[in-house]
This record gives sequence, C-alpha cells and structure tokens, in this order.
Amino acid sequence: MEQENQATRAEAAANQPRIAIEDVGPQLDGGRFAAKAICNRSVHVHARIFSDGHDCLAGEVAWREGGCADWRKVPLTPEGNDHWKAVITPTRIGRCEFIVLAWIDGYASFRHDLEKKYAAGQAIDLELREGSELLEQVLSNAPDDCGAELADLLLSLRECDDRGERLGILMAPRTLTLMQRAEHRLHLARSQTFALDVERQLAEFASWYELFPRSESLQPGQHGTFADVHRRLAEIAAMGFDVLYFPPIHPIGHTHRKGRNNSLQASADDPGSPYAIGSEAGGHDAVHPQLGSLEDFRALVGAAREHGLEIALDFAIQCSPDHPWLREHPGWFSWRADGSIRHAENPPKKYEDIVNVDFYAPDAVPELWLALLKVVLGWVEQGVTLFRVDNPHTKPLPFWEWLIAEVRSAHPQVIFLAEAFTRPAMMARLGKLGFSQSYTYFTWRDTKQELLDYFDELNRPPLRDCYRPNFFVNTPDINPYFLQRSGRPGFLIRAALATMGSGLWGMYSGFELCEAAAVPGKEEYLDSEKYQLRQRDYHSPVNIVGEISRLNRIRRENPALHSHLGFHAYNAWNDNILLFGKRTEDLSNFILVAVCLDPHNAQEADFELPLWEFGLPDDAVMGGEDLMNGKRWEWHGKRQWMRIEPWHLPFGIWRLHPHPS
Amino acid sequence: MEQENQATRAEAAANQPRIAIEDVGPQLDGGRFAAKAICNRSVHVHARIFSDGHDCLAGEVAWREGGCADWRKVPLTPEGNDHWKAVITPTRIGRCEFIVLAWIDGYASFRHDLEKKYAAGQAIDLELREGSELLEQVLSNAPDDCGAELADLLLSLRECDDRGERLGILMAPRTLTLMQRAEHRLHLARSQTFALDVERQLAEFASWYELFPRSESLQPGQHGTFADVHRRLAEIAAMGFDVLYFPPIHPIGHTHRKGRNNSLQASADDPGSPYAIGSEAGGHDAVHPQLGSLEDFRALVGAAREHGLEIALDFAIQCSPDHPWLREHPGWFSWRADGSIRHAENPPKKYEDIVNVDFYAPDAVPELWLALLKVVLGWVEQGVTLFRVDNPHTKPLPFWEWLIAEVRSAHPQVIFLAEAFTRPAMMARLGKLGFSQSYTYFTWRDTKQELLDYFDELNRPPLRDCYRPNFFVNTPDINPYFLQRSGRPGFLIRAALATMGSGLWGMYSGFELCEAAAVPGKEEYLDSEKYQLRQRDYHSPVNIVGEISRLNRIRRENPALHSHLGFHAYNAWNDNILLFGKRTEDLSNFILVAVCLDPHNAQEADFELPLWEFGLPDDAVMGGEDLMNGKRWEWHGKRQWMRIEPWHLPFGIWRLHPHPS
Repeated sequence: MEQENQATRAEAAANQPRIAIEDVGPQLDGGRFAAKAICNRSVHVHARIFSDGHDCLAGEVAWREGGCADWRKVPLTPEGNDHWKAVITPTRIGRCEFIVLAWIDGYASFRHDLEKKYAAGQAIDLELREGSELLEQVLSNAPDDCGAELADLLLSLRECDDRGERLGILMAPRTLTLMQRAEHRLHLARSQTFALDVERQLAEFASWYELFPRSESLQPGQHGTFADVHRRLAEIAAMGFDVLYFPPIHPIGHTHRKGRNNSLQASADDPGSPYAIGSEAGGHDAVHPQLGSLEDFRALVGAAREHGLEIALDFAIQCSPDHPWLREHPGWFSWRADGSIRHAENPPKKYEDIVNVDFYAPDAVPELWLALLKVVLGWVEQGVTLFRVDNPHTKPLPFWEWLIAEVRSAHPQVIFLAEAFTRPAMMARLGKLGFSQSYTYFTWRDTKQELLDYFDELNRPPLRDCYRPNFFVNTPDINPYFLQRSGRPGFLIRAALATMGSGLWGMYSGFELCEAAAVPGKEEYLDSEKYQLRQRDYHSPVNIVGEISRLNRIRRENPALHSHLGFHAYNAWNDNILLFGKRTEDLSNFILVAVCLDPHNAQEADFELPLWEFGLPDDAVMGGEDLMNGKRWEWHGKRQWMRIEPWHLPFGIWRLHPHPS
Repeated sequence: MEQENQATRAEAAANQPRIAIEDVGPQLDGGRFAAKAICNRSVHVHARIFSDGHDCLAGEVAWREGGCADWRKVPLTPEGNDHWKAVITPTRIGRCEFIVLAWIDGYASFRHDLEKKYAAGQAIDLELREGSELLEQVLSNAPDDCGAELADLLLSLRECDDRGERLGILMAPRTLTLMQRAEHRLHLARSQTFALDVERQLAEFASWYELFPRSESLQPGQHGTFADVHRRLAEIAAMGFDVLYFPPIHPIGHTHRKGRNNSLQASADDPGSPYAIGSEAGGHDAVHPQLGSLEDFRALVGAAREHGLEIALDFAIQCSPDHPWLREHPGWFSWRADGSIRHAENPPKKYEDIVNVDFYAPDAVPELWLALLKVVLGWVEQGVTLFRVDNPHTKPLPFWEWLIAEVRSAHPQVIFLAEAFTRPAMMARLGKLGFSQSYTYFTWRDTKQELLDYFDELNRPPLRDCYRPNFFVNTPDINPYFLQRSGRPGFLIRAALATMGSGLWGMYSGFELCEAAAVPGKEEYLDSEKYQLRQRDYHSPVNIVGEISRLNRIRRENPALHSHLGFHAYNAWNDNILLFGKRTEDLSNFILVAVCLDPHNAQEADFELPLWEFGLPDDAVMGGEDLMNGKRWEWHGKRQWMRIEPWHLPFGIWRLHPHPS
C-alpha cells in the first residue's frame, strides 16, 4: 500500500513542471492585484526561467486584452543569468492578461550540439540521422499550417544521400523558421495568469487645477456659480492644465456648520464647509443650489471639454447631519446607546458637522454600497471622468476594490485619485485596489536627499507597479511650511519639482499668486477657503502664471516628462542643487533638470553631464537647449559647472541633444 | 438582472477581508515552498497588517508542528508603520505551519477612545453605557472558560451606579485580560498557511571533512579500506569536525575508465574515478569490493558515531557503462538511432565513462524514480544521515522535491547538501525544493568587497530563507587560484573566512597540509585523487592542524558562529583587512573577526569597535578576548587600530565583553 502510494506520488512529481518560471513581473502580491499600465505604452514582462541540464530553453508571453478571445504571442529573449524579457504594448484600456510560457526547444538543442560537433570535426552521421527522426516526430504533431511544408522538407532530406547537403537542409534558416512555427514544445510550462490594469494616458500624465467655484464671482462677497467658472476656463486651459477639479459641489448642511477659520460658530452668511455634504436640498447626487443647477453643471462640463479640460469631482462619503440619507436610511449609520447618531471623531477631537456611514451596518450591505455606486455612476453620466476621493483610507478596502471595478468595467476611462495621506502600506494598497493615482509625501520632501530617495522609491517595485504619484504643490488643507517662508522663488522651486518630477501634478488656486498666509505655526491657510469665499485677483503682478504655463508646455512637448518613471539622479556637488534626468526608454527625449532648493541664495555646483547614458566618452560634445528660453549651446565634456540665482529663476530645464550638428 | 448581479457582487465584496495582511514572512515564492528553520532556534514571523479607519487592530500567529492537531498561538506586536512581529520557536524537526490572523479589537478601541475622552474631561456617561453593551455582546459569544467570569463582571457593572467605579471596572487589568481570553474578534482575517522546514542544528552548523577512503592505506601504493579510515577517526574528530564525507564508495566501471590526471587511457592498475559508478560488482547500492564489505561500512559508520562523526555519502546519479541498470533496465536510458547508448556530453566534450539516466524515458516513470529513492533509503538504513548530491542541477527539479520529501518524511534527520556550481536562481531553487545546504561561490570570493557583498547577500531574503551556504575551502575539483599562490598564510586566511563566515564549512583532505600543486593554469589539483590514490603524511610539519582545531573549537563554544546569519560588516580603513561581526540575537555572544586578505604583507588599519551595537557611547570601555590565545584586555573608545602580520597569524578573532569588570 505504502509502495503504491510512493509510486503514485512519483508519477505525480514526474508530471510537475520540469522548467521553473519564477519572479514573473510586472506583478503585485503574487498576482492578487493587477499591475498598472498605460495604453500604447510598452510593458516589460520579465521572468526567471531555468531547467535542469543543458537543453536550449525558449519562451513566450501570451497576452490578450479585455474582450479578446485570442491570445497574442511575443517571444521571450534571454538577458543572462536566467532572466528573460519580452515587451508588450496594450492598445485598449481595461483589463489585460498575460501568461509566461517556457519549454525545451528540442530542435534548437539539436542544432546547437550539431554545430559544436561539426566545428570540432567530429563524426556527425548519427546526428544527421537523429535530425531526420526529430523532424518526423515534429511532423507527427505539427499544426495544419506547416505540416505540408514539413513533409516536403523531410522528403528532401530522405532523398538526399550527401552528408553536406543533409546538414545544409537541417540547418537552413527555412528549417529553423518552420520548426518554430511547428511549436514543438517539450516540457511546456506556464505561469499563472497575471493581470494588467490598462488606463488612458491621463491616468499618468495630467496637470490638475483645483478651485472652489463659489469663490469665482466677480462681485465681492457674492457666492460664485458654475457660470462664473466658465469665464476662467480659457485662462486655466492656457496655463496648460488638463483637469479642473472642484471640492464637493453638493448641498451643504446647516447643523453644526463650521464658521470662518474652522470656528465652531458659523455666522448666518458663512457658506460652510463643502465637505459637510447634504441638506434639505439633496445629498451626494445633488448640486448646491447657490452654484446653479444640474443643467448648469452639465453645460460647464461641456464647455470645459471644449477647452481641453476634463472635470474632476470630489467623492467624499461623509454626510452632514442634514443629509437626506439620515432620514431615509437610518440603518446605514451607527447609532449610540441613547439613540443619538455617532458623529465623526478622533478622540478627543469631535467633528459634529460630519456623520459617517457604517459600511458594515446590517442594512448597509448591499444597499448603501449600491447607493454609493449609483452616486458615482450618476456623475459619470453627467460627464465627469475623474474623481478625487476624499480620505479613502477611512473606508473599507474591499469597498474600493468593488466600486472601482464596477465603474471601470462600464466606463474604463474613469480615473480615481486617492486623497490618502497616511502610512505607506495603505497608500500602496489603494493603488493595488484600483486607484489610478494618489496624493503623495512630495509636499513634505524638501531636501535634496529626501527628494532623491522619494523619486527613486517611486521608480522601484512595488510602487512603480501600483502607485502613480500626483504631486500637488498645495491643497486647501496643506499650506506647506516651505512656501510660507520661501517667497516667490519657493513657489517656482516647488512648481519645477512637481512638473518635472512626475507626469501628474496638481495646484490649488492661489498658488499661482504665491499665496502663503498661514494660521500661525500650522500648515494651514489663514482664512481657509473651506469655510469662506475667497475671491482673488488672478492678475495680481506677483503671479507666476507665465512660468507655470511654460512648465506645462515643456511637459506636453517632451514625452520624457509624461511619467514619474524614467527618473535618474546625477551628481551635482552642492547639497542645495538637485540634478536629475528624465528619459524616454529609447533616449530620444532626455531632459536634465537642475533645481536650486535654496529660495534665498545663489548656488553653484560642478556637475556631471550624463554622457555615459548615451554611450559617449567623457570628452564628448553634447548639445544643450534651455527649454525655458529656447537658447541652445554645446557642452564639451562630462564635467560642467552651473550657477543658479533663485531670484531670476531657481531652476534649469535642459534638453540634451547627443548629436549636435 | 444586471442590478441583481451588482447586488450579489456588492455582497461578495462586503464579505471580503476588511483587514489587509501583506508581506507575511518568512516565506518563499508566495508560500509555494517552505522557508528554512532550525529546531529550537527562534523564527521571526512578520507581516504588514492594516485596515481602514482608526480602530485598534490585534493579531496573532497560529502555528503547529508536524503531527500536532492543535494550533499554538502567539500574539503579534506592532513594530510601527503597520509592521507586526511575533517570535515562534519550533521544537521538532519536520514540517511546521503558520498562519497570520488579524482582527479589529473592539474592546481595545473602546478603551483607547474612553481614555482619551476621560483625559480631556469630556462627558463619558454614554461611553460607560456602551461599554456595558459591548460586554454583553462579548458575553453572548464567549467561550466556556470565561463566560462565567464575564457574566460576573457584567453583573457588578450593572449593580454599580457610581460613574468612577464603573469606569474602574471597565478599565481594570482583569477586564482587559478577560476580554482577550474571550477572543471577541471583529472582521477576523487570516493569511494563507505558510510552511517552515525545520531541521536539526547540523543542517546549519557543521564542519565537514572530505577524504577518499582508498587513499588511507599506510602501505604505499595499496588501495585503502574502510578499516584504514577507522585509524583516522580520532584525529579528524580531534580537529573538531562533525561530518566525514566520502566521494562515491560504489563499484567503479571499467569501460572507458579514466587514467591519471583525467587521461583517456587508464593503465591496468589505475583505480578509476569513483564517479563512474557501477560494475559487475554492483551499482549504487553496493560497495566497491576493494574498500571492504557492506558490513565493514556499517562498522565504520558506528565507529565514526562514537567519535561524534556522522558519515556523509555522495549521491551521484550517473552510471558507468558497466552499471547493472544498463542491462536490467535499458528503458531508463537514452538510446541513439544506431542502437548505441547516449553518453554524457557537453559538445564538443564527451564523457564516455559516464552514462546518464533519462528521468522522463517512458520506462523511467515511476520505476527509475523509485529505484533512486530506494538507493537513498538503503544507505539511510546503513546509518548514513547526510548526502552530498553531485550536480543536482542536471537532474529534474521535481525529482528532488519529491525525493527529499519522501526521505525526510520517514527520516527527518537526513540532510542533503547540493553540489550545484551554477547560476544563482538554480542554486536558490534547490534550497527551496528541500536541499538543506549548498556549495557556494565562496571559493571565488577573494577581495574585501566581494566577500562583504556575498556575506551580506546570504543574510538577506530570499537567500536567508532558502539557502544555507557550506563554505568549502577546497574540493577534489577545486584547487583555488588564491591558494596556489598564497602559501601557508593563505590557507589560514581561507580557513578563518570559512569557519567564521558560515555555520557550515568543509575541507577536502590535503588542505590541512597546505597542498596546492595544480595542473598549470587550471584550478585543478595535479595528480588528482579522483583518478589515483594519494597517500599523505598527515603529520608533515607544514600542517595547520592546530589552527583548524582551534577554529573549530571556537565555533563550538560561540553560538554566534553557529550560523551564517547575524553577520554585520564594520569599518576597517584598509582594503586588505576585512572586519565583521557575528552575533546572537540577544547579543550575549558577539564575535569580531578581522582577516588580513593579503597573505604576503603586514597590514594595518584604523577600525571601529561596534560599541553602538550595545547602545554604548563612543568613549565606552569594552572588554576584548583573543579567542586564538585566550588573552584579555580593555579597549577604550570606538576608534581603534590593528596590525596583522600574516606570517604569524593572518586573522584575529575577538569576543566582545561589553561589561568588563
């Protein structure tokens, strides 16, 4: 009995894959999640493939895009030390799958050995005979489209009795091609199926502009409307932005409404925080009446699109105590022992203007989940294609995975930005679950080492496969300490770092006016727009609109800047000067960026021009082009010197031309 | 219909784990393979655990050893940034399993919030009431062993109308303990089951001595026997070795036998390579008649054990053309078109004294596999507990996984050493499949940077979890270039690096006599013992037996040296001096090793005494003890200086005593 079991186990073992396929990538958590990809951008599929013995291995990537039944095939090529690679380029947004296959290539092994023996002058008669037998074997299982040709080949081999000719037939390029087509695959092994989440380019390359529509009236003190926003579309588009993002536009609650500067007492004319969503005028699917109607909103979406702008809405799941859901669906909330509703809190802090839904309340599954999906789908129907999700890390992870999959399966163009300022594991996880992009730690990375480390981490697995960073230079919640002290040069520094560092960056209005007045000692704006209207003179002379427009134009014109990937740091011997490169894979576009991190003093540095990246010697000549002013010149040699005067322009952006002529 | 599906999917999503458990370790390839562990040595289980929101999480590791039905439980403790850790210590050899569990701890969350609110002077009446309700809820599902106590507690809470007393009851340590025992686990999530392969200490800490029994006769030119080996057991044991390893001891083939120095023509009295296994006298289960009988072998195994030595045999699967299997099981081999057998070859090289079995020949599955298993089990029955496996990377990977599992399930004490000198991925894979330890690249790591990089790589995942390095200083196949030029100091250098660098090291006889005569220009021994007898004068005055004995004694006495793990490099400002530490986890044993890598010249270096590892300031006093000569002294301060004269002793081994008194 035990011997029988032993035999059964031995047979099972002999049926296990002989070839090891390890470390397949890109992948996340062993294939549990889809790795991120961008439509029409190449994906490098890689694996370690090896087997016992000396036989020749071969492999391919089989892949297909959502909706296709057929698998496409791309050969894997060996890169040394058992690493294999293939490049695939998804061309549709949505889900894409791939599998790595590997097998022993009997003909290649035969060919390899025969070549060696022939070169060493050994007898090869037996090998030639074995070659015929191999062909016969392949023919017996050959697919229809090459069976006839193989039979022909075999016939000519049999009819020939000249050793040299037979060798010639067996080794002919035509034979090699035919054998590859015949797919004679010994010990075929395959990896599990891995998924890619393919998104449109805007998921990785976009410039976001955030404003509060209610501040856009030209009448001092008057509540702005969607119509007022129309007026600004042209200049926002002219600055080079792609996405226009609004904080919540829904009716605002009255109960416990916050006053100016987050005070607990609102005066009668305080507009309240738009994050206290819901009133008698409606909830998450309604528009705050003072902004206009749903029709007005739809008209704005259309007008924005005409300016090349897509509208992003805020998806903030909390409710004001006046939200209709409290009456209509009390079972979606958490109620306390005394019958009162549980307000949001982070003890000892209380947020009495906010009530959170309880995703796991008995009445909430699936009704609440479906209602929230309906909210998002409803706005998609109104033309919204991007959602900035407020605090996703305080809502259940499975909820996001489900919601995003539901939305994207019907509307794969929709993009979700995670506003998660929390610990690293959660931020990465949200990306794995389907968020297209995320807010980042960029805002708090000021020094050269901090920035280098962070940019580098974003370029390495696992983040490079699950997390696209949207570098916001400021937000209504974050008035960075650096900007509070830096003056205008500091705003230019952060704009350069954000626009050059990532394909995604964002700006909250006021930044272009170098606004930085803060609540003393805090990273918050004084007179925060979250609690009051803030009408601005966008043509104030201190503005940096020209520079921002130029930066965005440089981004559009240079593919190397369409992603945070492709980043490399270079030597500049001054801790106040950050020098880095961004490049396309084929090096046809190579941008060198030098940023002076000191907003107050001129800085100088010797630096290394990365000639070696182009395979050029240290004394080569390299063409340079200043993308801020169009000037061109030639650099001679690797070692160079720079001086940056932040009061003029605190950074340099240079395109390298390796073949100046 | 689509709405129904949406609801079904939402419900399914709500049943997905709310808590994320990521990056559980130790693990290999997502749990496909068991990570390595040593009996009675602690294993650090770790994971990233996080969830939405602010609730308190808790977790534990559930684990059990082979044969136990019950799971033991160890709490996980948070280490910051969502990393959690627990230590488990397997106490049985064989398979061990573990699972990571995590849940929301409702009581801890309640307690945390209540503390905050109380400290802030907020009203807590409602919270006290909710506390009672929580207890009721816990009671309703409490396990038998704490239900009564909980009911008591609840009763006392109800009977009490003093707010302070109720607070006291709810927050009492006894309540905390009781609630933990009640295992009220909200949103319980669990990882997959991961496996550990627990081996006895000899798998990680052993000194191997290799000899050819046939060279051990005292009569010049006479073939040695097992009886001759008896005579040497005492001195091999006295040198501190644990394992005595023999190249194949089976009958040697005649056909195409190799002569001296690997010549193609053997003379009549050439003994042949023991790797050409099998003759009319038998195959892998037989003993070469000139060495003695199976009974003699068994007697030697017993005698060795009395000296504290275990015998390791070579498991080399190839056959000589005279092996009985060729006649009895022609279907286990590969035959050519002309009816001749396929010899081993690596074109254009041919190995005509060797024939390889074909593991996938139709007749070979499962018969050949079972026959090979029977060979190994047969030697285990003769008392063999270790196998050095010849070229495992040229046999199928699933074969090893199956064979080792079969052997170890019946005989978990058996240890397999992989003789795989091949590419890194294959070497790691063999460890994952079950090989206890492996030969390494150590032999070709000579410079300071090479050694540091290699030692460091062995200490990091994935290698630290799948690959135990056996540092052989030489083998019958490898006469390292370094030793060919180094003289006696070089042998001491390599012995120190091997014995201090890893828990596992090995030496092929002749090393202790500083033998290094080479085939010119090659890394091979002149007059290789693989093809002829080599009788040695083990008492030659050039020997380094004293030093080797001392090194092995130091290893035995210092737990820090029982593993390659626990390695850290330290600063010594001289590229010819390698300085590193080995420590036990609790720092109770801390060994500092300085090796002069230059065998010819004295070398000096300033170096850093790692006071900081003990939390000591830079000016602290540290006791030192030279383990080679027993001298003791005090170091004052971090910055120290050393001089090493290789002609005396090319290394220093110092035990640190952080509290000299």
